[in-house]
Amino acid sequence: MQERVSYNIEVITTGSIVAPRGFQAGTTYCGIKTVKDSLDLGVIFSEYPSTGAALFTTNQIYAAPVKLSRKAVQKGRTRAIVINSGNANACTGEQGDKDAEEMVRLTAECLKISEDEILVASTGIIGRPLPMDKVRAGIQAATASMGNTPAHGNAMARAIMTTDTRQKDIAVRLKIQNKDVILGGITKGAGMIAPNLATMLCFITTDVSMPASLLDKCLRKSVESSFNRITIDGHTSTNDTIAIIANGASGVNIPSNKSADQLPLQIFQQGLDYVTGYLAKAIVKDGEGATKFIQIDVIGARSRGDAARIARSIADSPLVKTAINGEDPNWGRIVSAAGYAGVELNESKTNLYINDILIFTKGMPTQCDLITLSTSMKSTDIQIRLELGLGDYSDTVWTCDLSHEYVTINAEYHT
Amino acid sequence: MQERVSYNIEVITTGSIVAPRGFQAGTTYCGIKTVKDSLDLGVIFSEYPSTGAALFTTNQIYAAPVKLSRKAVQKGRTRAIVINSGNANACTGEQGDKDAEEMVRLTAECLKISEDEILVASTGIIGRPLPMDKVRAGIQAATASMGNTPAHGNAMARAIMTTDTRQKDIAVRLKIQNKDVILGGITKGAGMIAPNLATMLCFITTDVSMPASLLDKCLRKSVESSFNRITIDGHTSTNDTIAIIANGASGVNIPSNKSADQLPLQIFQQGLDYVTGYLAKAIVKDGEGATKFIQIDVIGARSRGDAARIARSIADSPLVKTAINGEDPNWGRIVSAAGYAGVELNESKTNLYINDILIFTKGMPTQCDLITLSTSMKSTDIQIRLELGLGDYSDTVWTCDLSHEYVTINAEYHT
Repeated sequence: MQERVSYNIEVITTGSIVAPRGFQAGTTYCGIKTVKDSLDLGVIFSEYPSTGAALFTTNQIYAAPVKLSRKAVQKGRTRAIVINSGNANACTGEQGDKDAEEMVRLTAECLKISEDEILVASTGIIGRPLPMDKVRAGIQAATASMGNTPAHGNAMARAIMTTDTRQKDIAVRLKIQNKDVILGGITKGAGMIAPNLATMLCFITTDVSMPASLLDKCLRKSVESSFNRITIDGHTSTNDTIAIIANGASGVNIPSNKSADQLPLQIFQQGLDYVTGYLAKAIVKDGEGATKFIQIDVIGARSRGDAARIARSIADSPLVKTAINGEDPNWGRIVSAAGYAGVELNESKTNLYINDILIFTKGMPTQCDLITLSTSMKSTDIQIRLELGLGDYSDTVWTCDLSHEYVTINAEYHT
Repeated sequence: MQERVSYNIEVITTGSIVAPRGFQAGTTYCGIKTVKDSLDLGVIFSEYPSTGAALFTTNQIYAAPVKLSRKAVQKGRTRAIVINSGNANACTGEQGDKDAEEMVRLTAECLKISEDEILVASTGIIGRPLPMDKVRAGIQAATASMGNTPAHGNAMARAIMTTDTRQKDIAVRLKIQNKDVILGGITKGAGMIAPNLATMLCFITTDVSMPASLLDKCLRKSVESSFNRITIDGHTSTNDTIAIIANGASGVNIPSNKSADQLPLQIFQQGLDYVTGYLAKAIVKDGEGATKFIQIDVIGARSRGDAARIARSIADSPLVKTAINGEDPNWGRIVSAAGYAGVELNESKTNLYINDILIFTKGMPTQCDLITLSTSMKSTDIQIRLELGLGDYSDTVWTCDLSHEYVTINAEYHT
């Protein structure tokens, strides 16, 4: 099943991470998670030497695998990623560092590649040592079961889940220089941090060939307009990791050379933006207890930073989030959340639209059709657009509502 | 009933705002609130010329009464405050400004004092015009029923309530130069902003005599260590107002003169700190849906600002707040909330205590007695102490948990 979303981008609905040529995935249940037969360890592998790039959490408290992978990715030749779910290997001291190193060493042995070609990521409970006997057996089992069928891709998407209620994956086909280039991606994360089951993870594969430095640049650009635009609860995890591997199996090479034709790079960036945008929104839609997907556009700010601060202030306000949960177009909470973002505003120039209906202008509520507006709040997609009338900069943030279910998930979880 | 809390401070449990000599209060139900016979308008009045100081919301979107009172208090001779609850007179345009002005004008006429001796404050729903016919009748009725009995003080504390579940007031007696000086205070606010029923308000009276500039200095200092240390939901209101009136009826004068004996000023500051601290904590304890009072101490930071950022990051994390609601000593959420506060940390120097039990040290959880710790979480008072080991600065923030009741109050409220 395929869908063309733009002239250059065609969505493929099967395969995800192994849709690009020359990629394999292997998964297993090794017993880290307590729910039996739920996958908890996986390996993504490129059959060919590749380039890689990755971005990590900005949290000052970060997990052992983040520490190790941050160093490894600097070589730029990532070819495999080993991931476990159910245990974050965070706040685990020196033993945690050793365990992450051992995960890489074992994976290198099994795949017969170099240790510095491997990234490691973990997600799950914080502060407990990894059950390394299980992990060792898991790496053996996962690497022994590698393949590139849609089932392998699906299993890989499930193996990284924790409190997620559904797998989140995508693949797209791009036409570059008359050749097919494929991008595949998987992600997880039911909160920016879910309970002690921490973390947002995202892994992307592509069969284009590209220098690691350029791949890094493309990834940063994409993440800025996707993952850096979402917030579930404003709580940044200790383990967040986004990595991409490019193995060149498509025969398409995109050089760094600035005098080269820039069109291939533009198409690739477009495709990567689509993949990261799709996956980032998928995280919000599967946010803990989420019943609504909320897009917040702030327009007409004096700077991008101002627009972002206001959008986040609205997105992180529990009063705004609970109002939308209650399907109430509570403009007062939105306007006042904008007002405390630390940005100078001019109330008389401010317009607020909820679901395209102007509800606040010139410092006062409008006489809009409240029945139409109230009815529109029943949609699962809510749009908030705040026009500041102060300048030419804008920003967008995606978030979800705050429900009873969120409190239940997070209050009833016990360490 | 009296309680001595320090050598200099004795708590008086009746009278609150009219406990200091020469103060009166009058209240009425004029029909702004929909719940019949719940008080919704009140006037605080000093029988003598007085000095005054006030602080207001930092929200860029602020209400008409805030705009007007901010200007009026600059004269420094505040003698009366007129307050209505049930309508915030915020986002009400030019009509809102006129209505606030009329409230002051009418109060001045009734009390036979000058308009610039009067502050006005409003709390309640945002974006609806004040029902001025009711307000006019209310000001007449309230000023006609003034008095200084404990019943008058109690009624005044109730007249400013919105979603508050209980009145919050206090009075203390200080000994300064062998004379009694009394401070009385009332406050309201079930969220920093409660739904559309906005606002934190606090009014303090005292019978000391003091220049307005010094009174302002004392108030700022007190507020910094009390109201500026609390957060319910991180959402700053459009109407926050804290005002103090000093009328000199005790016969004690505290001059600005720096060569004068500083002891009277120190005792007064101590008393004022006690009153504002008591009232600020009372707001948190009556926070929307609150079941726990949480004190967060961050110690050993490189600066006060660093300590404050970390304390607020922990206090505003919905994951921390829901964990405490669920009585779970979830140190991982606390440590990771500290980690994304934008302050450089050294994990190996960080110690975390919950209810005085060391649970996290040197980057790892301790082998503490989890049964004792879990039992301690059932208390309504929770203490979080985070030692950073980086410097000599500290900060404290008070907050409450995030409960199902919070979501119910804020999702079921409809504009």
